[in-house]
Amino acid sequence: MANVKILCIGKLREKYLKEAQAEYSKRLSAFCRLSIEEKKEAPLPKNASVSELHKAIEQESESLLRASSGYKIALSPEGKQMTSESFAKMIKQHSQRGDISFFIGGSNGLSDKMKAKSDLVLSFSDMTMPHQLFRIVLLEQVYRGFMISSGRTYHK
Amino acid sequence: MANVKILCIGKLREKYLKEAQAEYSKRLSAFCRLSIEEKKEAPLPKNASVSELHKAIEQESESLLRASSGYKIALSPEGKQMTSESFAKMIKQHSQRGDISFFIGGSNGLSDKMKAKSDLVLSFSDMTMPHQLFRIVLLEQVYRGFMISSGRTYHK
Repeated sequence: MANVKILCIGKLREKYLKEAQAEYSKRLSAFCRLSIEEKKEAPLPKNASVSELHKAIEQESESLLRASSGYKIALSPEGKQMTSESFAKMIKQHSQRGDISFFIGGSNGLSDKMKAKSDLVLSFSDMTMPHQLFRIVLLEQVYRGFMISSGRTYHK
Repeated sequence: MANVKILCIGKLREKYLKEAQAEYSKRLSAFCRLSIEEKKEAPLPKNASVSELHKAIEQESESLLRASSGYKIALSPEGKQMTSESFAKMIKQHSQRGDISFFIGGSNGLSDKMKAKSDLVLSFSDMTMPHQLFRIVLLEQVYRGFMISSGRTYHK
């Protein structure tokens, strides 16, 4: 069974997001060993300078990178988009070879250095989504991916 | 205050989705008169033929179209994508002129006829999302749109 790691910044605040995460984690347990690691937000003063902001992003990205293993996928609106079917194929292919790690940045995103170190920079949308809600969208799509790969029907 | 209609198929099943919808509905009440109308799923036998499926999609699409007013936006993975900033501008522009209606199809999507009758066919992603979770993603983006247009900062 493949190891799938969701590496992200900060704890989920809303109860409904926690419940959604629990639901998809349960469903995913049929297909992979899922781990969700929540790394600390880097402290940032209220009126942070650009260099303080970059330092915080760098620090957060580093902590995600350190926890990763296997095929590294950074999530970013500037990344490459794929259909659910291509995403399913990609997950299947890499989960047969080793671990898969997904990186979700905090509210300030991921560092360019980290995107360069990732195997794939993936975008779900041209739109910006809140990183906490996005975690649910990603979990659902990983679940959908395993369902597609295993040839099961799945309600849209 | 603008009327924003979310016209969709079927009731939300999961408690966490209902709570997320309630949260964004509350937040949106600062910016618009939001109405969420849930139309009935068209009955479909288990092993439906292609023509039965098309008839059901047509029926659902018709019921959404009948409930709409103003600028009509059909949501579909095959539509045009935009950034959150362009989406915000578009909402601002049309909400100053009249109502805005968003159409979210059921698990079988929207009819081609209905997409042709819409003013805009909009895609959030090349990926397929479940229509119930997508409703939350749309509500969040509409809220984000109003926040951007009003020049307020909003946590990503």
